[in-house]
Amino acid sequence: MAAPLTLLFLLVLAYGTNAADPDMLQDICVADTKSAPKVNGFICKEASKVNATDFFFDGLAKPGATNNTMGSLVTTANVEKIPGLNTLGVSMARIDYAPGGLNPPHTHPRATEIVFVLEGELEVGFITTANALFSKTIKKGEIFVFPRGLVHFQQNNGKVPAAVIAAFNSQLPGTQSIAVTLFTASPPVPDNVLTKAFQIGTKEVDKIKEKLAPKK
Amino acid sequence: MAAPLTLLFLLVLAYGTNAADPDMLQDICVADTKSAPKVNGFICKEASKVNATDFFFDGLAKPGATNNTMGSLVTTANVEKIPGLNTLGVSMARIDYAPGGLNPPHTHPRATEIVFVLEGELEVGFITTANALFSKTIKKGEIFVFPRGLVHFQQNNGKVPAAVIAAFNSQLPGTQSIAVTLFTASPPVPDNVLTKAFQIGTKEVDKIKEKLAPKK
Amino acid sequence: MAAPLTLLFLLVLAYGTNAADPDMLQDICVADTKSAPKVNGFICKEASKVNATDFFFDGLAKPGATNNTMGSLVTTANVEKIPGLNTLGVSMARIDYAPGGLNPPHTHPRATEIVFVLEGELEVGFITTANALFSKTIKKGEIFVFPRGLVHFQQNNGKVPAAVIAAFNSQLPGTQSIAVTLFTASPPVPDNVLTKAFQIGTKEVDKIKEKLAPKK
Amino acid sequence: MAAPLTLLFLLVLAYGTNAADPDMLQDICVADTKSAPKVNGFICKEASKVNATDFFFDGLAKPGATNNTMGSLVTTANVEKIPGLNTLGVSMARIDYAPGGLNPPHTHPRATEIVFVLEGELEVGFITTANALFSKTIKKGEIFVFPRGLVHFQQNNGKVPAAVIAAFNSQLPGTQSIAVTLFTASPPVPDNVLTKAFQIGTKEVDKIKEKLAPKK
Amino acid sequence: MAAPLTLLFLLVLAYGTNAADPDMLQDICVADTKSAPKVNGFICKEASKVNATDFFFDGLAKPGATNNTMGSLVTTANVEKIPGLNTLGVSMARIDYAPGGLNPPHTHPRATEIVFVLEGELEVGFITTANALFSKTIKKGEIFVFPRGLVHFQQNNGKVPAAVIAAFNSQLPGTQSIAVTLFTASPPVPDNVLTKAFQIGTKEVDKIKEKLAPKK
Amino acid sequence: MAAPLTLLFLLVLAYGTNAADPDMLQDICVADTKSAPKVNGFICKEASKVNATDFFFDGLAKPGATNNTMGSLVTTANVEKIPGLNTLGVSMARIDYAPGGLNPPHTHPRATEIVFVLEGELEVGFITTANALFSKTIKKGEIFVFPRGLVHFQQNNGKVPAAVIAAFNSQLPGTQSIAVTLFTASPPVPDNVLTKAFQIGTKEVDKIKEKLAPKK
Repeated sequence: MAAPLTLLFLLVLAYGTNAADPDMLQDICVADTKSAPKVNGFICKEASKVNATDFFFDGLAKPGATNNTMGSLVTTANVEKIPGLNTLGVSMARIDYAPGGLNPPHTHPRATEIVFVLEGELEVGFITTANALFSKTIKKGEIFVFPRGLVHFQQNNGKVPAAVIAAFNSQLPGTQSIAVTLFTASPPVPDNVLTKAFQIGTKEVDKIKEKLAPKK
Repeated sequence: MAAPLTLLFLLVLAYGTNAADPDMLQDICVADTKSAPKVNGFICKEASKVNATDFFFDGLAKPGATNNTMGSLVTTANVEKIPGLNTLGVSMARIDYAPGGLNPPHTHPRATEIVFVLEGELEVGFITTANALFSKTIKKGEIFVFPRGLVHFQQNNGKVPAAVIAAFNSQLPGTQSIAVTLFTASPPVPDNVLTKAFQIGTKEVDKIKEKLAPKK
Repeated sequence: MAAPLTLLFLLVLAYGTNAADPDMLQDICVADTKSAPKVNGFICKEASKVNATDFFFDGLAKPGATNNTMGSLVTTANVEKIPGLNTLGVSMARIDYAPGGLNPPHTHPRATEIVFVLEGELEVGFITTANALFSKTIKKGEIFVFPRGLVHFQQNNGKVPAAVIAAFNSQLPGTQSIAVTLFTASPPVPDNVLTKAFQIGTKEVDKIKEKLAPKK
Repeated sequence: MAAPLTLLFLLVLAYGTNAADPDMLQDICVADTKSAPKVNGFICKEASKVNATDFFFDGLAKPGATNNTMGSLVTTANVEKIPGLNTLGVSMARIDYAPGGLNPPHTHPRATEIVFVLEGELEVGFITTANALFSKTIKKGEIFVFPRGLVHFQQNNGKVPAAVIAAFNSQLPGTQSIAVTLFTASPPVPDNVLTKAFQIGTKEVDKIKEKLAPKK
Repeated sequence: MAAPLTLLFLLVLAYGTNAADPDMLQDICVADTKSAPKVNGFICKEASKVNATDFFFDGLAKPGATNNTMGSLVTTANVEKIPGLNTLGVSMARIDYAPGGLNPPHTHPRATEIVFVLEGELEVGFITTANALFSKTIKKGEIFVFPRGLVHFQQNNGKVPAAVIAAFNSQLPGTQSIAVTLFTASPPVPDNVLTKAFQIGTKEVDKIKEKLAPKK
Repeated sequence: MAAPLTLLFLLVLAYGTNAADPDMLQDICVADTKSAPKVNGFICKEASKVNATDFFFDGLAKPGATNNTMGSLVTTANVEKIPGLNTLGVSMARIDYAPGGLNPPHTHPRATEIVFVLEGELEVGFITTANALFSKTIKKGEIFVFPRGLVHFQQNNGKVPAAVIAAFNSQLPGTQSIAVTLFTASPPVPDNVLTKAFQIGTKEVDKIKEKLAPKK
């Protein structure tokens, strides 16, 4: 069975960081995700090989598996899944939450996120660079915005699963999940950086690393 | 009872045209939608008056009324409804379709649209500037992309209502519904422009104008 | 003799859709329009092969043939004609109008257009997304602006030919001629989309399709 | 009678420097050029006061007076003349040249220029940052491109007057006429900067200053 | 004596989040940082009141006080200190490090940072969204780059003080110091978000909060 | 021994012109500066070949040789020296000045420059397109800003060497040194353009050309 945090890593790996994407210089430039060379974004697939399915994706139809440490799973629908998004500056994702599940504090380096609740109820919030927390409880059919680049989270404090559709103004919005980034990077972030930043001991650092480490 | 096409007009009126929005120069600049002066976008509300509800909207929770000429209704969730979206470059909308309903051919002058089907089944398509139609049938949970600026439409050929959540990479994506724009503008587009463009007679032009005119 | 609407199609085909082009990252990146791979825009020609003629074009010197259905012809001077324009974010076109000629309602998905009248007199206008028509009569030496993405047209109601030089803030501004797009796309836009959008019968739809179809 | 170089100064004064303008966040935001506060660009005129003439200009219809030191005159058609251009990212100018007239070496800090010859014949050129001159002779109806930010010039070596229509991908492209900038700035650029930069004596510097100084 | 973490807060407070700033629409638009209304960035000071000191700053000449919990201090030179930077898209900062001092893991939501070492030696690194750490030791006169939006840090493992000059491609790059953001936001981030994200107990959360709390 | 002005040329040659660089579409796209094809900027090096040294540069640690005609030398630290800067929109340079040395009037076609004085004292200034000079004396540790695209200079009127670290909001800011551009371009700018622009004789033009010509 697939290890949940490994999934989370692949997911994180799937992301890049992004901002207001550069505008396109033609109607469409469907990504040729396989081919070299890599440019800023992707080179365009041969026009003759483009068809409607390049603009289509069915991978968000079913809930993702949330039986992992965080009790949540992000399923992306970005340019790597929908090649037609290349140069178009937008993408989506579906996030599922088990009861008690958390999409832990993270940033999208250069995309604003807007979520629409498909089901359940979530406690959501973002923190400004002035250290002010803006949080709210949102229910099915409601919308909340997470401004570009700011740390934010969603938590399901309810007794039933929850799910949202998220949209981003980037073809590859990028995600940096904070705890995972700092405590499981490879090579590892030096212990004395973590002990000083969080004012904790090496023992506590090691415990966190162990708990967040990808399951074998 | 509110005239459906009037609603459609207010809706169209609510829109502006937009592209890759300029990046923000601070965390947030919540729109003060009332106040003068108008700038490119909106001036910022006083920081002390900003709170989490500026980033929240519940107006897409319920289906819109589709008992109108087109059998569809677009409900917007843009910067005019969510002031917190100002400078953030993204927005959403909900589109409801009665059985047989059509969201008629239109453009978003400078936003790419990506839709997620909430329920039902739709025939969707866009046309490139090379006059190629890319179309597909999409079902609940599926996604389709309409590249920035290209004419596109969605039609519900099913027997049950359909609905989508649409996301745009603009705080105010702009909509120009083609038939309505050409045949109901005020002052009206000269008849000889329409007769020549569509190669039809003045009688036919007048009939279309009458049919598309906002209901009294 | 060349079929006028075919010309119009090639023309439309020549266009892509565009917005505020991304800024260049070097002085010049002259388009190598032939070579693969395609990127967003064009890859750069070898520096050693660049010369002054890459920034030159003489194709707008003579009036275009206006003996077609619309009585007008657009001759483009974009990156496909002037490879030196690649990454530079600007282009031109010449539009000629026979007496009674019309440049039918169309959009440039992401370029603002500004026209300077070379000769004759034109009735010009654009329609905002709030459905307001802004129109004016312009004469030789006068200028008019068509904001990015909005439907606009020019008509020669005079007894003599007219011509304009148009400039765009894009290397490939893109054109979507509305009637032609909807009634001659291939594969065709479904009849029930057109009948509902324009509130006309299938017979009328077929007649328009026939009239606008490229001449054999 | 107006002193030619003073005209040139007013002209220079009229300009700002510009690049790929930020995209607009609504259909139109017609400049209220009089009013305070100043923002990046201009604040928008009240919608109720906007009309078609805000997008119109007739100031390029007639040749400009070229009886000045350089034998040329630039007449601008930018946002300061056409308030409707605000946020739209494009503008025009007309340049007239007496026989032997020169539009001296200058830069548009962040706009690419494309010129269409209305009459006469010109020697035109630009210099890259690698110090390569690209030059050509262009005639009536021909086009040439001057890449954004590079020093360029146009000279009329013919026996008859010449004129061009220039277009820029900016609402206010900006002009910095090199000799005038260095030798007539106020307060003046220190003499030892000019003597060292041009490897000439103070006497020669003073002579150039005197020759280029605005006529009393 | 000034409380170090309070300083850090003021600092954080001083920042906004930013990306590739929108281009300016005139030569200069010196920030009128006091005045209302706030727009995206700042409105422009009256031209008559602008002088060379608006483009000048001497606040980075002396080392900052590093006798605080982290043993480092960031002194900013952004648009709030140099009003002339408004619309110009760049800024600087000076960072001083005591022996053993750390500039803890943080992000600049939408600016890339490039540092030049003024004195001493630093261990620096950034982490990609694929969780790869890129780190290096840099000495006096050496440069290192921290890509936009990615978590990064600098640590002085040497026995002497260190200092860098940092440059950003934004007038207000924005900083979100990760531990401080999560453990000292107000209102506070819910404990169960922190315990789950870091897989630690409430006691440990409280201890971290206490250690990072601004000194009274 | 290397001819100083040749160095200056190589330097100028190394530059491109640039503005607000397009945003990146992934974390990093390290430049593969050798490989074809050239695109806008550079194609990305294979991810597997990227390491921390791609983001590092030590070439600004030592003062540059200032024993040349101008008594100054610019050493660049842009994308051509630091491949990791590709798509990141920022770069640096070090400028050294002998006593009496001058960094002659020049423009960075589309980057704003901000300088931090490492040692010595400089007279610096920029000229707006309205021909107003803004100048100041800056000392060690002080900062000054040169707005994008405007002519500017720095001169060391002191008795000791001076040096600055300059930062730019572009990966390749571009430099056009005015006297060198006009008097040493190849092929040469026509004499009658220079005589008329500067109101000097052919003899004086030839003398300047000779003095500024790259040393044999």
